[in-house]
Amino acid sequence: MDASAEVDHLAAERSAARFDVEAMKVAWAGSRHAVEVGDRMARLVASDPVFRKDNRTMLSRKDLFKDTLRKAAHAWKRIVELRLTEEEAGMLRLYVDQPGYVDLHWGMFVPAIKGQGTEEQQKKWLPMAYKFQIIGCYAQTELGHGSNVQGLETTATFDPKTDEFVIHSPTLTSSKWWPGGLGKASTHAVVYARLITEGKDYGIHGFIVQLRSLEDHSPLPDITLGDIGGKFGSGAYNSMDNGVLRFDHVRIPRDQMLMRLSQVTREGKYVHSDVPKQLLYGTMVFVRQTIVADASKALSRAVCIAVRYSAIRKQFGSQDGGPETKVLDYKTQQSRLFPLLASAYAFRFVGDWLKWLYMDVTQKLEAKDYSTLQEAHACTAGLKAVTTSATADAIEECRKLCGGHGYLNSSGLPELFAVYVPACTYEGDNIVLLLQVARILMKTLSQLTSGKQPVGTMAYMGNVQYLMQCKCAVNTAEDWLNPVAIQEAFEARALRMAVNCAQNIGQAANQEEGFYERSPDLLEAAVAHIQLVIVTKFISKVQQDIPGPGVKEQLQNLCNVYALYILHKHLGDFLATGCITPKQGALANEQLGKLYAQVRPNAVALVDAFNYTDHYLGSVLGRYDGNVYPALYEEAWKDPLNETVVPEGYHEYLRPLLKQQLKLSRL
Amino acid sequence: MDASAEVDHLAAERSAARFDVEAMKVAWAGSRHAVEVGDRMARLVASDPVFRKDNRTMLSRKDLFKDTLRKAAHAWKRIVELRLTEEEAGMLRLYVDQPGYVDLHWGMFVPAIKGQGTEEQQKKWLPMAYKFQIIGCYAQTELGHGSNVQGLETTATFDPKTDEFVIHSPTLTSSKWWPGGLGKASTHAVVYARLITEGKDYGIHGFIVQLRSLEDHSPLPDITLGDIGGKFGSGAYNSMDNGVLRFDHVRIPRDQMLMRLSQVTREGKYVHSDVPKQLLYGTMVFVRQTIVADASKALSRAVCIAVRYSAIRKQFGSQDGGPETKVLDYKTQQSRLFPLLASAYAFRFVGDWLKWLYMDVTQKLEAKDYSTLQEAHACTAGLKAVTTSATADAIEECRKLCGGHGYLNSSGLPELFAVYVPACTYEGDNIVLLLQVARILMKTLSQLTSGKQPVGTMAYMGNVQYLMQCKCAVNTAEDWLNPVAIQEAFEARALRMAVNCAQNIGQAANQEEGFYERSPDLLEAAVAHIQLVIVTKFISKVQQDIPGPGVKEQLQNLCNVYALYILHKHLGDFLATGCITPKQGALANEQLGKLYAQVRPNAVALVDAFNYTDHYLGSVLGRYDGNVYPALYEEAWKDPLNETVVPEGYHEYLRPLLKQQLKLSRL
Repeated sequence: MDASAEVDHLAAERSAARFDVEAMKVAWAGSRHAVEVGDRMARLVASDPVFRKDNRTMLSRKDLFKDTLRKAAHAWKRIVELRLTEEEAGMLRLYVDQPGYVDLHWGMFVPAIKGQGTEEQQKKWLPMAYKFQIIGCYAQTELGHGSNVQGLETTATFDPKTDEFVIHSPTLTSSKWWPGGLGKASTHAVVYARLITEGKDYGIHGFIVQLRSLEDHSPLPDITLGDIGGKFGSGAYNSMDNGVLRFDHVRIPRDQMLMRLSQVTREGKYVHSDVPKQLLYGTMVFVRQTIVADASKALSRAVCIAVRYSAIRKQFGSQDGGPETKVLDYKTQQSRLFPLLASAYAFRFVGDWLKWLYMDVTQKLEAKDYSTLQEAHACTAGLKAVTTSATADAIEECRKLCGGHGYLNSSGLPELFAVYVPACTYEGDNIVLLLQVARILMKTLSQLTSGKQPVGTMAYMGNVQYLMQCKCAVNTAEDWLNPVAIQEAFEARALRMAVNCAQNIGQAANQEEGFYERSPDLLEAAVAHIQLVIVTKFISKVQQDIPGPGVKEQLQNLCNVYALYILHKHLGDFLATGCITPKQGALANEQLGKLYAQVRPNAVALVDAFNYTDHYLGSVLGRYDGNVYPALYEEAWKDPLNETVVPEGYHEYLRPLLKQQLKLSRL
Repeated sequence: MDASAEVDHLAAERSAARFDVEAMKVAWAGSRHAVEVGDRMARLVASDPVFRKDNRTMLSRKDLFKDTLRKAAHAWKRIVELRLTEEEAGMLRLYVDQPGYVDLHWGMFVPAIKGQGTEEQQKKWLPMAYKFQIIGCYAQTELGHGSNVQGLETTATFDPKTDEFVIHSPTLTSSKWWPGGLGKASTHAVVYARLITEGKDYGIHGFIVQLRSLEDHSPLPDITLGDIGGKFGSGAYNSMDNGVLRFDHVRIPRDQMLMRLSQVTREGKYVHSDVPKQLLYGTMVFVRQTIVADASKALSRAVCIAVRYSAIRKQFGSQDGGPETKVLDYKTQQSRLFPLLASAYAFRFVGDWLKWLYMDVTQKLEAKDYSTLQEAHACTAGLKAVTTSATADAIEECRKLCGGHGYLNSSGLPELFAVYVPACTYEGDNIVLLLQVARILMKTLSQLTSGKQPVGTMAYMGNVQYLMQCKCAVNTAEDWLNPVAIQEAFEARALRMAVNCAQNIGQAANQEEGFYERSPDLLEAAVAHIQLVIVTKFISKVQQDIPGPGVKEQLQNLCNVYALYILHKHLGDFLATGCITPKQGALANEQLGKLYAQVRPNAVALVDAFNYTDHYLGSVLGRYDGNVYPALYEEAWKDPLNETVVPEGYHEYLRPLLKQQLKLSRL
């Protein structure tokens, strides 16, 4: 990617690949068009000095925030100047790769108004938002209340005398806390508060509230605003002004309540509109689909760095003192790294499928067909939970796989981890989401007896008679390459775990109490169900026609790696439920080893197919040209500590110590 | 711990405990004396404003480093002024809790001279080191060479003409890289280099090399010195000046080679002394023992924060809209958190046992008895690997268990994680160490046939006939409370996994090739062996007499939690090797749920027993008094971003955007 590179230290690795990398880029990106747009936007960002980020981890919080404001404004300027399409603009923002208020403005504020505002409200607010005449954020979570929206304390009390809502923070714990873009940048917010009218609490509703003056950006009267402080890592999410917000009886006009689903009349009557509530689920499916897509991006970046550096780094030699061996040639490295490479592809393809699911759900909602909504909700919630947790763990594993140097900021991995991990908590804590999946699994099982056929990703549960007693037919290691064998083993495992849970809950005196007691097992059952979904979608993908020499074969290998790795990792599930025998488990593990050997010569090309620029990767270890050591050495000298040869503090704190004059010194 | 606290929000939790916390403090610390010294030193540090660390994550790299120099000098001043004992001084440094050059000076430089220097060399160098007239570090790893000491490239060539060694860095990759204290603070280093004399390479040896002037701290001629740059996290390990060092034909006197084990004569002859090489293993056992002790400290801090905050934080309510439930009351929270609480205690006790092992090894070495050396080495290497990996994962899990707020620096958890994770890589990469354990397991198995009885933690392998065919006798969930059943299941699992590996390796044409091919399985076998060691030592501990009402019962519970959690987590191992049946696995899981319920009322008191001050914990969420939300709110305002209401950059980058004047502005 670096045009100035003269030597490609990974050239031999690249020429060993047994497939067409350009065709794989298309398979990864989804289309030739997507490759082209991505490539163009990535280069646009990489070549613009304003978007430089190699010094990011060294900036103070204030400088980092200012840098974020600068990048956001510059990106917008380029988007306008170059008349970029929405797709191109999205790509550009992706490659700028720095969290900031813009993410919440486009990702939460605008969609909230679109989804929950009336046509009139949309006509009033969206044009201003589209032009950035206002900057908006999404103020839901509170200091004392995260996942449980129904527990929020902020109130919006209707005052019929003035036709206004009074927004108020009655307690310390009701302070809005965490919203991105709130702390310093936003002029407006969609604020969630308990609607109270005619003395009655109607629960949580959204309100558009102006927070700051459009003239001088100072907070409006009776509004307290600030940043909630430093977060995990250097650089990372510290570019975002996650904020705190308190209201002291702040008045807004009645028409700033988002009124698509329900309204308060001039007289203070609370009325529902005829728009079905279910429409809101569409937004949730959409947001979570983007989170799954982001998981595959973050994971693939980490894997790209780890694979390339593992093909450069050498450790230990043959017994006879010959040259050291590439780390990537060690079976222990392969058995830890290649499953993560396979996971990156698996999450990518299940993310693509979620895009289709979102369209399907949207169409059905428009036709008032709610039959697949619950299943789609369970599926997206579960995929969000499983892919983000796996990705967070995998980034850290990739860091460890790079040895000591992975601990340096110049490796890019510490920041990648720190900036990624909140995905496990935001938009639904992963544990809470998995329990929702489990609840729907239990419901689906209980409805089987009444003859209700499960749909979509839960359709396999209708096959309960067969799956409860089927025996895995695998006799040789190669038999595990048969997708039918894999699919059936995963279906049987997921179903039997769910049925076990249902039986145990059934024995409890109280169903809710039983669910609570068995919740750790239910989490495991939910994970098993979601892993089945991922495996199923990967299998469908590789059964399609995929153009390009060798591309399909590579993806089949990775699909098998993913499935057999999950099987090995969760062997206890498969054995405890009798889905496979210990012998069959050993054969799966044997086949996995053989698959690693097939991935090995293709590993570098498989991460090249992600088509990431060195700018976007942001890692000395992951450089395209593999010229790692001179770059590491060069980066070191940029640290502020190296500005002076003798460190600041020497005269006060080192010299008196060395000269035995400490007692005389004031410290 | 905070004397000014007026309300104890955790008082009800504390009074619910069914054991004597003061007695548990003694059990945790090892003795009443250790509690007393720890308490005194912790308070000394906490009450001294110089040791303040609540602003640490906000400091620039330079200010952080200067702060570290200041704390180190001040700590030394206090140690001297108060005439602290070595034990007290060590405790004081522990509670200062900021990585710095002092750690390497005392932990590596001094021990290297003690272990590898002649009596004469010790007499010359140690008094200077003891008084800090010189500051030393340990320069082993190189830019291109980490774990493989034999791959180091730096050379020390003897020049008989001048009676000197010429230290040289022949390549870029031979640059010394990572040594703590090297970058800015140290005046001297023990440098490891290939000893070349009479044209022959005698491999890696240690040399004392002066790096900086004792007059003005500038690097000596032909020596390049610097810091290697920022590392994971804010604060964290960035207080340490991990360094880079290059030599351009630097000359040192011959007598600065560490000559206890071998010497170069005036004429340039390489000769071995009569000191046995095995003595060096004693040092390795010592260092790794301290790492295991550190694991239990880091883990217990994270668990203390997560348990206390989980007893404060509430989420979701009963179905009928009642008050929200304490997060600690959720079974899913318990099933994730209590195993980590149990692990903290497990690692603490196995660490205590390692102290005994170190004494035992030292005594035997002095008596030239090397019979247990290999087993002791395998055991410490493996325990280092397993406890540090588990601790790193557990700290991050504790952070996630605190929800979103765990992502704030004020929670203390991001820094705790970032500062801890290098333990997985330094002093032997965990994977490399586990393969060493596996190699000794294979050797021990192969020697069984020749009648050689395994010793110490491998003694159970002598029981191979029985363990290969024994059947677990568990019939009820309560049967799993029998330590004999647990012990046998863990022994059988470890042994059978090792035997499987040995059989598979035996089928390979070449043993070394077979070992390489099977290395992923060997890792798992090594982990199984080490988990057995931890379980065994925990069981021995709770079978001893432990004073104090209820203390022994609590530890028995935690021991069972640890064992059954590991069994559940690695259920696949136990089932695949036929050590237990699926039914018995389900019973273990059932018993685990019951144990969690017993831990629940004692959880807060069990973390109080660690006896950590709020200063040492460094966490708003982990406050002793549980007054979390006001503290979080207060911390937020300290962020530099809150110094101004309108952020820097508003006029350049926000106002032009909002005013639609971006095209006119220069960005």
